[in-house]
Amino acid sequence: MSRDLSTINSLAAVLVNPGKPLELRHIPVPKVGSRNVLIKTSVTGVCGTYVHYWKGDVRLPYPVILGHESIGCISELGDGIKTDSIGNQVAKGDRVFWVSSLPCGKCYYCMVEKDLTACMNRKSYGNLWCCDEFPYLVGGYSEYVYLSEGASFIKLPESLDDREAIAFGCGGPSITKAVEWAGGIGQGDKVVVQGSGPVGLYAILLAKISGASDIISIGGPSHRLQVAKKLGATLTIDIFEKRDPGERIKQVLEVTEGRGADFCVEATGFVGAFSEGIEMTRTNGTYLVVGLYSNVGNASIDPSKIVRKNMRIVGSKFWEPRHLYKMMHMINQVKNEFPIKDIVSHTFDLPHATEAIEAVEKVETVKAILKP
Amino acid sequence: MSRDLSTINSLAAVLVNPGKPLELRHIPVPKVGSRNVLIKTSVTGVCGTYVHYWKGDVRLPYPVILGHESIGCISELGDGIKTDSIGNQVAKGDRVFWVSSLPCGKCYYCMVEKDLTACMNRKSYGNLWCCDEFPYLVGGYSEYVYLSEGASFIKLPESLDDREAIAFGCGGPSITKAVEWAGGIGQGDKVVVQGSGPVGLYAILLAKISGASDIISIGGPSHRLQVAKKLGATLTIDIFEKRDPGERIKQVLEVTEGRGADFCVEATGFVGAFSEGIEMTRTNGTYLVVGLYSNVGNASIDPSKIVRKNMRIVGSKFWEPRHLYKMMHMINQVKNEFPIKDIVSHTFDLPHATEAIEAVEKVETVKAILKP
Amino acid sequence: MSRDLSTINSLAAVLVNPGKPLELRHIPVPKVGSRNVLIKTSVTGVCGTYVHYWKGDVRLPYPVILGHESIGCISELGDGIKTDSIGNQVAKGDRVFWVSSLPCGKCYYCMVEKDLTACMNRKSYGNLWCCDEFPYLVGGYSEYVYLSEGASFIKLPESLDDREAIAFGCGGPSITKAVEWAGGIGQGDKVVVQGSGPVGLYAILLAKISGASDIISIGGPSHRLQVAKKLGATLTIDIFEKRDPGERIKQVLEVTEGRGADFCVEATGFVGAFSEGIEMTRTNGTYLVVGLYSNVGNASIDPSKIVRKNMRIVGSKFWEPRHLYKMMHMINQVKNEFPIKDIVSHTFDLPHATEAIEAVEKVETVKAILKP
Amino acid sequence: MSRDLSTINSLAAVLVNPGKPLELRHIPVPKVGSRNVLIKTSVTGVCGTYVHYWKGDVRLPYPVILGHESIGCISELGDGIKTDSIGNQVAKGDRVFWVSSLPCGKCYYCMVEKDLTACMNRKSYGNLWCCDEFPYLVGGYSEYVYLSEGASFIKLPESLDDREAIAFGCGGPSITKAVEWAGGIGQGDKVVVQGSGPVGLYAILLAKISGASDIISIGGPSHRLQVAKKLGATLTIDIFEKRDPGERIKQVLEVTEGRGADFCVEATGFVGAFSEGIEMTRTNGTYLVVGLYSNVGNASIDPSKIVRKNMRIVGSKFWEPRHLYKMMHMINQVKNEFPIKDIVSHTFDLPHATEAIEAVEKVETVKAILKP
Repeated sequence: MSRDLSTINSLAAVLVNPGKPLELRHIPVPKVGSRNVLIKTSVTGVCGTYVHYWKGDVRLPYPVILGHESIGCISELGDGIKTDSIGNQVAKGDRVFWVSSLPCGKCYYCMVEKDLTACMNRKSYGNLWCCDEFPYLVGGYSEYVYLSEGASFIKLPESLDDREAIAFGCGGPSITKAVEWAGGIGQGDKVVVQGSGPVGLYAILLAKISGASDIISIGGPSHRLQVAKKLGATLTIDIFEKRDPGERIKQVLEVTEGRGADFCVEATGFVGAFSEGIEMTRTNGTYLVVGLYSNVGNASIDPSKIVRKNMRIVGSKFWEPRHLYKMMHMINQVKNEFPIKDIVSHTFDLPHATEAIEAVEKVETVKAILKP
Repeated sequence: MSRDLSTINSLAAVLVNPGKPLELRHIPVPKVGSRNVLIKTSVTGVCGTYVHYWKGDVRLPYPVILGHESIGCISELGDGIKTDSIGNQVAKGDRVFWVSSLPCGKCYYCMVEKDLTACMNRKSYGNLWCCDEFPYLVGGYSEYVYLSEGASFIKLPESLDDREAIAFGCGGPSITKAVEWAGGIGQGDKVVVQGSGPVGLYAILLAKISGASDIISIGGPSHRLQVAKKLGATLTIDIFEKRDPGERIKQVLEVTEGRGADFCVEATGFVGAFSEGIEMTRTNGTYLVVGLYSNVGNASIDPSKIVRKNMRIVGSKFWEPRHLYKMMHMINQVKNEFPIKDIVSHTFDLPHATEAIEAVEKVETVKAILKP
Repeated sequence: MSRDLSTINSLAAVLVNPGKPLELRHIPVPKVGSRNVLIKTSVTGVCGTYVHYWKGDVRLPYPVILGHESIGCISELGDGIKTDSIGNQVAKGDRVFWVSSLPCGKCYYCMVEKDLTACMNRKSYGNLWCCDEFPYLVGGYSEYVYLSEGASFIKLPESLDDREAIAFGCGGPSITKAVEWAGGIGQGDKVVVQGSGPVGLYAILLAKISGASDIISIGGPSHRLQVAKKLGATLTIDIFEKRDPGERIKQVLEVTEGRGADFCVEATGFVGAFSEGIEMTRTNGTYLVVGLYSNVGNASIDPSKIVRKNMRIVGSKFWEPRHLYKMMHMINQVKNEFPIKDIVSHTFDLPHATEAIEAVEKVETVKAILKP
Repeated sequence: MSRDLSTINSLAAVLVNPGKPLELRHIPVPKVGSRNVLIKTSVTGVCGTYVHYWKGDVRLPYPVILGHESIGCISELGDGIKTDSIGNQVAKGDRVFWVSSLPCGKCYYCMVEKDLTACMNRKSYGNLWCCDEFPYLVGGYSEYVYLSEGASFIKLPESLDDREAIAFGCGGPSITKAVEWAGGIGQGDKVVVQGSGPVGLYAILLAKISGASDIISIGGPSHRLQVAKKLGATLTIDIFEKRDPGERIKQVLEVTEGRGADFCVEATGFVGAFSEGIEMTRTNGTYLVVGLYSNVGNASIDPSKIVRKNMRIVGSKFWEPRHLYKMMHMINQVKNEFPIKDIVSHTFDLPHATEAIEAVEKVETVKAILKP
C-alpha cells in the first residue's frame, strides 16, 4: 500500500447538537487491525429516521456520524479477514454493503433466540456510537468507515450497481426481515402499504414479487405514488387529497371485497396510521408495524377489535446480515423489470448533508443519497 | 318412543330485558326433523360473558335463552343422524357436549380460510338467537335444546363425567383455539396468564400440560388463585393485594430473568389489562388477547413498544368443534393428576339462574353451573 | 324449464374394462332434488392418471365415468341451493367448476384435522364412484353431471374463460394445496420441478408468480419444455436428451451455487424421479412429492441422506375447494402475462375419449380436453 | 494459578485404528491464549455413534480423541473471555458443558439460513479433529480439553449436577433441535419413539413434558424399556420379544385409533426401522428421522405411501448451543419428577474407555459415562 492511511484524515458530517447543521470534521483514520476493515464510502443513504435524529426526537450519544446504510470499497483489509460475512473471497477495492448493527453474539437473544435484532447489547454504526470513541469512523457520513471486529459486510455482485443497491436504503433489509417475521406475503394476497417512502416502496416491490394480487399504496405526495405504481401498486391513495381516514378505510374495504387487507404494512412513522391500519386489516389478517419505531405519542385503540377480528399485529425492528443478502439478491433478480435506479431522486455531497436531511423532511425526495 | 315430546313444554330461563331477572318460561318442544337432535340438558355453564349480557353491555336479540356451553343426553335423534360430528355412533340416551356456533359453511371464511370462527353468517346458540324464532329451544338454560341441521355435537367418553367436561365451560375450547392460533405454548416457555376465571384457569392448565417452565397467574380473589396453583401456576399475583400495575409488571420481570413472558394470555375482559400485558411480554414474545371480546372502552398504548419489542399481539375469538374435541381429550388425559371436578364451585337450578349470574359477577365462584 | 330433463339421457364415455376402449352409453338423468345440481358439461380434462386407470394400474369400481376436472353450466338447480360453495349467488346457466371430492364432513380428518383431502370416507367423482349406482352421472365424461348433496362447485368469474380455467386440470388445485402443505415457495427460492405435464407446469407458474429466482424444469418432450419456459422456467433440462440422472443432478447443482434446490417438486409419476429429487434438494431444503400417487414400484434410498441434509420430504394428495378458488384467482390474476389458454393443445369429443387418453399416454399433448 | 499447565500433560484415550483398543496417551497442554479456555474434564459420555467409529463404519481423521458430550471445570480462562456463550459471567472453577461443533460463522448456512448444524465448514471436537493437530486436546476422552476461539460452552446452574446434565449425552440437544426442526410435539399428540437408547429416551421425556397423550417406546432390552416407562412411555414394545415388524405396526395402529402416530421419531440407527416408521405414522403425520446418521445401507420404500398419507419425513442432524441451553433447562425443570440421574447406568475411567464402548455395543448400558 502506497500511502499510510493512518496519517490521513477522513472528512465526516457530524451531528453534534440536534437542530443545528451537521458539522464537517476531519477525523484521523485509526490503524487497521488484523480483524478490521477500512471502507472508503461510495454512497450512503439519507434515512427518514435522520429527520427524527436531527430534530432530537430520538436521543443519540452525540457527537455522532450519521449513516447506517452505506456502500463503499475496501480500502484496507486486516490480515485475519479473507472473506465477507457469507464467505465470498474479498480483496482491496471490492465494493461492499456493510451492516450497521453489531450484536454481542453472547446474550439470550443472540444465542437462544438466534435473533440478532433483539440483541441486548447491540451496538450500531451511524446512530448509537459516539464518534469520540474508538474507532471514531463509525458512520457512513464520512469518507472512511472503520469496521470493528465482528462487523458484517457483504460483497456486491458486479451486476448490481451502487445506485440499485442503495435505492431503498435500510428499508430493503428492514422490510425483508419484518415480512419474514410476520409470516410472509403470499401469492394472491391483498396488501395495503401505509407510507410511500423507501420502506413502504420496498414493501410494495416485495409484495409484487411475492405474487400479491392487489397492492394498495397509501401515501404521498404524488411523485412518490407514481413510483409506487411503477413498483407494483395496483391502487394508490393520496393522503394529501383524501385526508379523511374514514374515507381511506372505506376505499380499502371496497377494493378488497368488503373484507380488508390480508396483510397491511405500516411504514409511516405517524401514530395516526396505527388505528387506521387496524381498520384496514381483515378478520384473520396480519398488521405489520414497522414505521413506528420512534415514540411519537400514544394511540387510542379498542382492543376488542383485535379479538373480534382474530387479528395478528406484529412489530418489527432492525434486520440481520441475511436480510441484506436477500434484498441484494431480490434487486438483482428484478432490476430489469422495475426502474430501481430511478428511486434515487436526489444526490448530495458531504458539505450538503444537512440540506439532504431537510429535503427528506420536506418529502421532496423519493430517496436521497450522499456521495462523500 | 313412549311419550310425544312435541306435546310437552321445556322450562327455560329467558333474558327478556337486560338488568332484569331472567324469566322462567315454558316453551313448546318442536317436532324433531330427520336432521335434528333434541337434547335433554344435564348441565350448562354460567359464562362470565353473561354478566355483560345481563348488564346490557352487549346487545342481544331479546328474548334470548342463555347457555352456550352445555352437556345433555340425546332425547330424540332424527333419522338422518347416525353419528356425532366426528363420526362416533350415537343413540338415544348418549351424553353429548354440543357446539354453540353454527357457521354457514359457504362463505369466504368457512371455505377459503377454513376458519369457522370467522364465518360471516354465523348463528350462535345461547346468545345470538332469539327464542321467539324457530326452533325456539336455542340455549342451554332450558330443559331441552333443539339442535338444527348442521349443529355440531360430540359424544362424551364414558370416562369423563359431566362436571369434568363442563368445568371450564367455553374457556376450554376458546383457549385451545386461541393458543393454537397464536402458534402454541412450548416446552420451557415462561407464561403469564392475566385473569383467573375459567378461561384463565384453562390457559394455566394447558400451559402446564404443554411443559411451560414458569406459569404466573395474575388475578383474584384468593380462592381462585388457590385453584390456579393446583392447576400448575408456579406464582400467583393477587390483584386485590398488589393493586399497582407497575408493581405487578416489576414482579413479572423479576421472575423472568428481566425479559418478561414468552407468552402472555389476556383473559380478564378489563381494558386496563391490555397495556399491562404489553409490558409483561418480552421482546420477540407473543401476547394473546382473548378476554377483551366485549367493547369495554379504549386503551391508550404506545405502538413503538410493539415495534421495539418485535412483539406479536394476537386476538382470538370463538372456537370450532375440533377445539372442543381437543379439550375433552386433554381433560380426560390429565384428570387424575389435577382436581378438575373441583373447579365447579357452585351449582344452581333454573329458577335460580339470575342468582347464578350474580354470583359470577361478584366473583364468588370459580365456575358456576346450572342443572336444569 | 321447458323440457323435462329427467326423461332425457346423457351421453357418457364409460371405462368398463381397463385396457379396452371406453364405451359410449346413454344414461338417464335422475330427478334433481332440492339439494342437488345438474351440470351440463362444457369441458373436462384428460388427466395423466387416466392413463393409469386405463391400463388398470389403479383399480376402480367399474363401470366408471371418468372426469374429475370439469367445467359446465348449471342446468338444474335444487330449491335448496342459492349459492355456490363460497357464497356467490348462482342461477341456471351459470358456469361453474365443480369439485370431484365429496368428503364425509364427520370423521377425525374432516373435523379435527380440518383436512378434507385426508377424509376417511371420501367419495370421488370421476374415478371412485361406480356409474351403476345413484346418481349415475358421476364423472365429467358425460353430457350431464349430477352433483349430490354436499358436492362443491365454484362459479367462474366472467373474465375467466373455460380454456383458461381448465388449462392445468386438477394440477392447478393439486399443486396449490401441495405447495401450501409443504410450507410455500418463497421469494428468491431456487426451485426444481421434475415433470413437465400440467401438474409440473402449474408448479412452474406458481413458483414464478411467488417470486422464485430460479426455476429449473426437468422433463420433456421439447414442446412441453417450450411451454415451461413461457410459464417462467429459467432453465429446462430435456430428459430425452440428457438421459443420465447423474448428469441432470450435476447440472442442477451447478446452477444452484453447488447447494441444490431450496424447493424441489416431483410431478412425474415415475419412481426413478424420487431418489434423483433427493439428490437435487439442498441441505435444509424441501422435497415435495406429488406425482407418485400411484404405486409404480419401490425406490431404494439411503435414509442417512435425509438425516445429513436436514431434509423435509413432504407428500401431498388431492385438494380442497379452497385450492380451486385460489387457482382460479391466480389464473385470473396473471392470464394477461402468460399464455394460459395455449396450454390446451388438444380438444376431443366424447366419442374420441379413448384417443384422447392415448394422446396423453404418448405425451403428444400439453393438456388435452374433451368437449362432451 | 499455582502450577504451569503448559508444562503438564493430559492423559487421553485415543482412537488410533478402528477395531483396536483405544490408546492411552499423555498429550502436552498447549498455552492458553486470550480467547481460549482450558477445561478439566469431569464427565464425558459414551455416545452410541462411538460403536460405529470404533468399528470403522464412519471414517475419522485418526488419531482422534473421542468425546463430543462433556462437562468439566474451567481450568484456565483467556483474558478475552468474560462470559459463557449466553452471557453468564464465568470464572476459573466454574462447571460448564461445552459444545462440540465449531461452525465457521461465515457461510451460506451460518449467515443466510442461520442454521449452524448445516455449516459448510464445520469442525467438531471428539470426532472430526485429528489430535496431532493444534490444539491437540480436542475431545472429551482426555483430562483436559482446549477450547479454540469461537467454541461455545454454557455454565451449568448449581442446581444441576453432572450426572443429570450428562444423562442423555448429545441425545438431549439433538432431539431438542430435531423436534423443533420438525415443528414440535404438541399437547395431546400420540408419539412413537423407535429406539430406547439415550436419544430415544430423551425423545420420550420431551414428548412427556410437552403433553403427549400416548408415548409408545419401541426398543429393548427390557432394562431400557423400564427406564422408558419411568420417563413417560405409556406403552413399550420389546423388539427382542416382538420380532416381527408387521406385529409391531399392528400394535401401534391398535393403540392409535387405527390411524398411527401423529409424530414418530426414529432413534435407532438401523435401516430396517425406516420403512417400519413410515407405516407407523398416520396420514398427515410427521416422521422425524434422527438415528440414521451413519450410512448403514439402503431402504426400499414405496414413495406413493408418502403421497397417499400426506406425510412429512424430516431428517435432522446435530444441534446448536441453544439446544444445549434448552435441554439443561428442561432437565432442571423436571428432575424432581423423573429419575434423571439414574439414566447413567455405568461409569468408567479413561483406562477402561474401550470397555465402555463395548458395553454400549452390547446394549448392557442405558447411558455409560467416563470420568477422566
